[in-house]
Amino acid sequence: MESNGFRPLDEKSLIEYIKATPSLCSKLGNQLDSLQIKEVGDGNLNFVYIVISSTSSLVIKQAIPYIRCIGESWPMTKERAYFEATTLKEHGRLCPVHVPEVYHFDRVMSLIAMRYLEPPHIILRKGLIAGIEYPLLAEHMSEYMANTLFFTSLLYNSTTEHKRAVAEFCGNVELCRLTEQVVFSDPYKVSQYNRWTFPYLDRDAELVREDDTLKLEVAELKSMFCERAQALIHGDLHTGSVMVTCDSTQVIDPEFSFYGPMGFDVGAFLGNLILAFFAQDGHADQGNDRKAYQQWILRTIEDTWNLFQKKFTALWDEHKDGLGEAYLSAIYNTPELQLLVQKKYMKELFHDTLGFGASKMIRRIVGVAHVEDFESIPGASKRAFCERQALEVAKLLLKERRGFQSINQVISAIQELHDKSSG
Amino acid sequence: MESNGFRPLDEKSLIEYIKATPSLCSKLGNQLDSLQIKEVGDGNLNFVYIVISSTSSLVIKQAIPYIRCIGESWPMTKERAYFEATTLKEHGRLCPVHVPEVYHFDRVMSLIAMRYLEPPHIILRKGLIAGIEYPLLAEHMSEYMANTLFFTSLLYNSTTEHKRAVAEFCGNVELCRLTEQVVFSDPYKVSQYNRWTFPYLDRDAELVREDDTLKLEVAELKSMFCERAQALIHGDLHTGSVMVTCDSTQVIDPEFSFYGPMGFDVGAFLGNLILAFFAQDGHADQGNDRKAYQQWILRTIEDTWNLFQKKFTALWDEHKDGLGEAYLSAIYNTPELQLLVQKKYMKELFHDTLGFGASKMIRRIVGVAHVEDFESIPGASKRAFCERQALEVAKLLLKERRGFQSINQVISAIQELHDKSSG
Ligand SMILES: Nc1ncnc2c1ncn2[C@@H]1O[C@H](COP(=O)(O)OP(=O)(O)O)[C@@H](O)[C@H]1O
Ligand SMILES: Nc1ncnc2c1ncn2[C@@H]1O[C@H](COP(=O)(O)OP(=O)(O)O)[C@@H](O)[C@H]1O
Ligand SMILES: [Mg+2]
Ligand SMILES: [Mg+2]
Ligand SMILES: [Mg+2]
Ligand SMILES: [Mg+2]
Ligand SMILES: [Mg+2]
Repeated sequence: MESNGFRPLDEKSLIEYIKATPSLCSKLGNQLDSLQIKEVGDGNLNFVYIVISSTSSLVIKQAIPYIRCIGESWPMTKERAYFEATTLKEHGRLCPVHVPEVYHFDRVMSLIAMRYLEPPHIILRKGLIAGIEYPLLAEHMSEYMANTLFFTSLLYNSTTEHKRAVAEFCGNVELCRLTEQVVFSDPYKVSQYNRWTFPYLDRDAELVREDDTLKLEVAELKSMFCERAQALIHGDLHTGSVMVTCDSTQVIDPEFSFYGPMGFDVGAFLGNLILAFFAQDGHADQGNDRKAYQQWILRTIEDTWNLFQKKFTALWDEHKDGLGEAYLSAIYNTPELQLLVQKKYMKELFHDTLGFGASKMIRRIVGVAHVEDFESIPGASKRAFCERQALEVAKLLLKERRGFQSINQVISAIQELHDKSSG
Repeated sequence: MESNGFRPLDEKSLIEYIKATPSLCSKLGNQLDSLQIKEVGDGNLNFVYIVISSTSSLVIKQAIPYIRCIGESWPMTKERAYFEATTLKEHGRLCPVHVPEVYHFDRVMSLIAMRYLEPPHIILRKGLIAGIEYPLLAEHMSEYMANTLFFTSLLYNSTTEHKRAVAEFCGNVELCRLTEQVVFSDPYKVSQYNRWTFPYLDRDAELVREDDTLKLEVAELKSMFCERAQALIHGDLHTGSVMVTCDSTQVIDPEFSFYGPMGFDVGAFLGNLILAFFAQDGHADQGNDRKAYQQWILRTIEDTWNLFQKKFTALWDEHKDGLGEAYLSAIYNTPELQLLVQKKYMKELFHDTLGFGASKMIRRIVGVAHVEDFESIPGASKRAFCERQALEVAKLLLKERRGFQSINQVISAIQELHDKSSG
């Protein structure tokens, strides 16, 4: 297990590590005698420890050279921690309010120390399952996405800076490959890793594998994912990578980050909100039919896109005479032309968002990794009922994405399909 | 001028360099007493020397740290020689018949020794101006493009190999930036570098700068050029980068190579053939009205695309069960679906080709670097007449490219515009 100085830590050896690391000692107020350490990782890929001293706290995340939930049989470079740390710092620089501060990074140990997002912060997905409204979520997430995506794109940077950064993040290829496989490939073929709510969705899963139009469209999205270095994307921006309270929104876990298509991030977030919407029917009970909550989710989807679009184009307007090399102001030199260019850009980004969002939804229903939103629904039949609606919407969005002109039309399509199924 | 051991050579100091380099000595049969050395570079970017001994020959190309035709006021990394050598070797491995062999590369000296393409090899552009038919040109160029583009794409390679190579070629950013500026930016704005056949094309140049639709479309192509790592492209595949005899076709000068959109190469070649077509009217004389030759050029354009498409998809079929990760055979698992996927891919590549080809044409008429096809036409009025037609076709192809379904329709549009202008 040991290689080049790497040692996987546990709650005990972590104490020794902290004591031997001056920056962590001082971050903890040098109160190391009564440290409380607890592993809280959700067991997916990495280990996450909460460390609390009498005066302070932090979180330690360590990557191991395989996928935790599968075991050593699926190796995965622990260098992912380097890319996670790099992106936490870069996205944190661009949007400090919504990214936890990094205190320390140890490349040999694949170990990141960062701010502990203290209670009442919880994982957004859990809040969505519990039916909790977050009135600032759309505002905050649109702010995070607009800033991180705009400022790492050619709308803001020179191609010199861009190509340097693109080259560096090509190093995160193993994590990209994991996405390529589990998002863009496995759901569309027979794979030992795929699973679904058996036996209810057997035919639905088969139909995904037999849908030529769907497979044609997903190929285009996969190529875009592999080839298009548009911005430094988070790469795994589902509702399990966001921690929230009613007034704080924090994005964690960008270990899949690289220069890829912006729509992959925006789509991941919106697609997971759509999954949460359809899961609500499975969580409704006599005390709460979740109908009002579903309306809040739809409003949040709508607001997130509209605010994102507004903030992103506002940043563009603000920096249009800057160093960004995609649209030189000497060429795009009238307000009308600037507007035309932005409309075209945002329209394409919208369609990418729908395509990627839909492919992220599909893989959560018939691929290897499912979401707690559905998994926590008691009863396979009820779960399958919810999942099937989400799957149908996803297929529609993926195949017909270029026909949607606004997020409102998307919301209407979701509602229509939902009403038809429930009615 | 000296830095880190780099010395710009001349015909005299090159002799000393050769004598001190065993591999070159032996390549020249160790007959170094009566070496004939002649500089033959066309003066654009680099120095090119033909070296002939009594028993053998070779060509030495040296990059200098600025653009030769402009001077030290426009610096340009001499590391371009490293990318040129790397691509000559890689493209040579993939298509040895149409790429000169590299004998020696010296990174410190930015110096490449390669096969001397002996007479009667001439630069294709000069052959086109002279009205010489090359019956194998379409066959050979389609072979070169199909092989170099297919085998460096994700249709053949894993994303691991792809991202490694993409990262390396991000290093050639200075040359990419030159293309970004002179192809995608300068022609669409007022720039000290632009020139055109004055005063005839004053209004035409102005119309390019005022054409919002054109500028909208060219922005999309520029973004694709900057962001999309589709294959290892030559990057400067005009008719001045091809040397020919009636039975040999050799591609030289890939110093602009990087992982970019395939259509940029195919378009460069076809676009320069279209320029050659419109230039013929300026070279017609009583002995030769060039009409038959124009038909040969059109046939060559048509054949090149059709053969390219045929060879490229044949390679795809041949390797569909290989390591290429864009379209896994377990997903694209029926002949009908494979056909659908290929049709979609080739249609998009066709439209990219038209867009990039058109933008390469436009920049040769109103941008900094013009082509000998037009420059050698005696009389500004006659030259402008030819150039204007080429410009009109280019604008049409760029703006309406998605409306063209086949290369035949492109040929018809060229002929129609030509007949209308001449008729
Ligand atoms: N900075 C933090 N503050 C509080 N809890 C955290 C923090 N980072 C991670 N966690 C907890 O650990 C879990 C796993 O973290 P995450 O970064 O998503 O790891 P993985 O890459 O294994 O998915 C999260 O779901 C969250 O509950
Ligand atoms: N291998 C070769 N054999 C014969 N002539 C060559 C060879 N390479 C280059 N030349 C001649 O030198 C000229 C300039 O070479 P090129 O590689 O295009 O340089 P540049 O990068 O400066 O454009 C060509 O147009 C051709 O006439
Ligand atoms: Mg912060
Ligand atoms: Mg996580
Ligand atoms: Mg993670
Ligand atoms: Mg040249
Ligand atoms: Mg050159």
